[in-house]
Amino acid sequence: MQNLLSELKAIVGSAHVLTEGDLSAWTQDWRKRSHGKALAVVRPASTDEVAQVVKACADFLTQHPESGLSIVPQGGNTGLVVGSTPDETGRQIVLSLQRMNAVRSVDAANLTMTVEAGCILQAVQEQAETAGFWFPLSLAAEGSCTIGGNLGTNAGGTQVLRFGNARDLCLGLEVVTPQGDVWQGLSGLRKDNTGYDLKNLYIGAEGTLGIITAATLKLYPLPKAQLTAWAAVPSMEAAVQLLGLAHQHLGASLTGFEMMGQFALSLVARHFDNLRVPLFQESAFCVLLENADAESETHARSQLESLLEAALAEGCVTDAVVAENLAQAQTLWQIRESIPLAQAQEGLNIKHDISVPVSAFATFVTRTDAQLAQAIPGVRLVNFGHLGDGNLHYNVQAPVGQDAAVFLQEQEARVNQIVFDAVLAHGGSISAEHGVGSLKVDHLSHYKSPVALQTMRAIKQALDPLNLMNPGRVVRLSA
Amino acid sequence: MQNLLSELKAIVGSAHVLTEGDLSAWTQDWRKRSHGKALAVVRPASTDEVAQVVKACADFLTQHPESGLSIVPQGGNTGLVVGSTPDETGRQIVLSLQRMNAVRSVDAANLTMTVEAGCILQAVQEQAETAGFWFPLSLAAEGSCTIGGNLGTNAGGTQVLRFGNARDLCLGLEVVTPQGDVWQGLSGLRKDNTGYDLKNLYIGAEGTLGIITAATLKLYPLPKAQLTAWAAVPSMEAAVQLLGLAHQHLGASLTGFEMMGQFALSLVARHFDNLRVPLFQESAFCVLLENADAESETHARSQLESLLEAALAEGCVTDAVVAENLAQAQTLWQIRESIPLAQAQEGLNIKHDISVPVSAFATFVTRTDAQLAQAIPGVRLVNFGHLGDGNLHYNVQAPVGQDAAVFLQEQEARVNQIVFDAVLAHGGSISAEHGVGSLKVDHLSHYKSPVALQTMRAIKQALDPLNLMNPGRVVRLSA
Repeated sequence: MQNLLSELKAIVGSAHVLTEGDLSAWTQDWRKRSHGKALAVVRPASTDEVAQVVKACADFLTQHPESGLSIVPQGGNTGLVVGSTPDETGRQIVLSLQRMNAVRSVDAANLTMTVEAGCILQAVQEQAETAGFWFPLSLAAEGSCTIGGNLGTNAGGTQVLRFGNARDLCLGLEVVTPQGDVWQGLSGLRKDNTGYDLKNLYIGAEGTLGIITAATLKLYPLPKAQLTAWAAVPSMEAAVQLLGLAHQHLGASLTGFEMMGQFALSLVARHFDNLRVPLFQESAFCVLLENADAESETHARSQLESLLEAALAEGCVTDAVVAENLAQAQTLWQIRESIPLAQAQEGLNIKHDISVPVSAFATFVTRTDAQLAQAIPGVRLVNFGHLGDGNLHYNVQAPVGQDAAVFLQEQEARVNQIVFDAVLAHGGSISAEHGVGSLKVDHLSHYKSPVALQTMRAIKQALDPLNLMNPGRVVRLSA
Repeated sequence: MQNLLSELKAIVGSAHVLTEGDLSAWTQDWRKRSHGKALAVVRPASTDEVAQVVKACADFLTQHPESGLSIVPQGGNTGLVVGSTPDETGRQIVLSLQRMNAVRSVDAANLTMTVEAGCILQAVQEQAETAGFWFPLSLAAEGSCTIGGNLGTNAGGTQVLRFGNARDLCLGLEVVTPQGDVWQGLSGLRKDNTGYDLKNLYIGAEGTLGIITAATLKLYPLPKAQLTAWAAVPSMEAAVQLLGLAHQHLGASLTGFEMMGQFALSLVARHFDNLRVPLFQESAFCVLLENADAESETHARSQLESLLEAALAEGCVTDAVVAENLAQAQTLWQIRESIPLAQAQEGLNIKHDISVPVSAFATFVTRTDAQLAQAIPGVRLVNFGHLGDGNLHYNVQAPVGQDAAVFLQEQEARVNQIVFDAVLAHGGSISAEHGVGSLKVDHLSHYKSPVALQTMRAIKQALDPLNLMNPGRVVRLSA
């Protein structure tokens, strides 16, 4: 291995091949569920260096198949499914893209910007805004996650309803293949039908098919106003009805539709003294709506008010407030974003990131709530999520008074099975926006179609026959 | 082969295995460039029958590799790149999806509908509208093309600016693999990160990786008003400037932005007496804009007028009209849609379906016009297209008085090379929305990255090792 490390040092410089000291920032996952060991953390500064590193590793593995060498690409290391940290073997190279953080260009007429994979998402948002545009990918980790990681995992977030997932915000990629070749696909084109859709194959592949080194992203005109409302809704069915009305009234201006259950909001009220949570005490659910208007604040407000009037008249909303200013809007979003933290304060819990068709939402929740309550008397359910996309963070908290760690240890497998079986029965997905990583790779064999798994395996084998790139993540080569 | 044909008859019924009589509706391509010969035209009625047909063919080919048997999937056979008709060997089965034309379901709350591949696009649009929704894929062949063909070729059309290509309007697929297995991926989910993006791999693969048998499509709320304007713009640069203004003023309500050159419009004026083409005589280009408003016709009109006022003030528009009623709007669209027909009336011509970044549009056209004029004195250029997507139908017509057929024969290769080289130099695509088929497959080896081609080949080989599905289209297995 020493020869390889010397070679890597020659490529990226000794200072950027880390083998000693505290490497936990790269070897431990965000939620601290996995503590791996890296052969080295390698930090290339350019696409060419990435390609050379991969080629050197591929050559080494070809000559020393017994070494079990592999590469784990890593961005901001904020993933939630243990997909970007090394295992415990010490045979994996962490290839960190952090140093590749240049914004290569902004093309105003084409509404695109080209950025390197290591750019922090928030920096991408800010650079877009500086240029007078909106890059609407937005999620809790935006201050530390990288755009390369966002694309590698096809990140979702709060604006999917209008703009789609990370995949939909990307027009082109630059990728280093498992052979160390560079695919230059930074097209910036909105139409290109010259062959298979490689871009979307690499996006969401979590670094198992190649390393995304740069991307051309879509930009949108900045909205003239972004208005936020908070509505009390009596039931899940009512929330779905409100969503339909919101689509009709606001069209493409509807950029956010977040649903929160009463218990989830009560946790925020309990653990965050500084946040006043509106309307949750008298209502089973609250919904946060966002209206991004191309015209003016006055217009945005009148549109939102007319929607809420219609919803009150139809009975799917019982009460509502519209934020009067930016500070109020931010507070409403802060309440929504604080749910995971409030939950953590309340104690460890079993998290799910699932999706079902919007039409199946209410039935899914009613049935699964009942099944869990029967299986585990007193269990507490924290429901919140992006209802507009059918994406629910359906989290399960220990009954009052029960030790959370014990609960997790004893009940996690059972709870997962109940929830995932219900997801399958309702035509849903057991991983809506977080990906597969190591955490869910073995669940897929039960919950994903065998034909799809076989096709995925064939693709992995064809594009990475050495199994060099992030092996054991997303799909295992053996059935 | 007789055994195979008997087996196919047993699967789909004798009446649906056609081997005699005039089969040209299936064996000749839309533009009548290719006249193939089919071993049989097979018309299954269900996904199960498609799967059985493919399995029977795969088995036969495995036992008789010398037979050179293969399958050409076909929808409405309206493609423009000879991708869905058989070659001349008589060894290809045309698998027509036309009998699979059921709308399986409309899910109003989920804003989706699930349809079989053989549904005519216009029928899909109409069924969506009957249910109160908008399916915005729209293109000239909509009365005869099928949704399966639209997805197989990732069709574009006039609404891409706002809604994306066919790919972006599809949430899930049902696919019969080259092994005759069925992948049931009709999810209707807007978020699903459980592995590689197979959906987008099959979309645009032109039937070379499997056969799309059904799809779950996105629906949108019907707009309250759709308003059309026609603007005279002095130059290509001005058209790009107008596009930027339109994005800012109309946001997501901007659903159409079609640019037409003066010569293209003069052909419509000449060959269609019944159409009055506005504003083209005094202006180098005209732009057709469409504003689809979620609010009201009054609002749509005031938004469009305020955009045009701003554009007049900035000088990127010199004159404009807004359609007063639906009939006027339809006439404006009819003028746009009549350009290809008017061109055909004028004589054979060399067609291109290219894209470049919007920012490179003006330079591309100016330079390429000049190069062609120098190479072929008197050559006439018919420019029109979806400027909002960077997609140009850049067609080349013989000089006045020259025989069009002779021109085509003598100049096509040379013109293609000039245009494609210019496309490459401007970072564009030589096939924006029509696909590759047989017509462009050999061009790709020059104009597509070798790394991309190699990756495409590896995928084709992995998923269809027998090379059973539409061989020689999109990508050849040998370099």
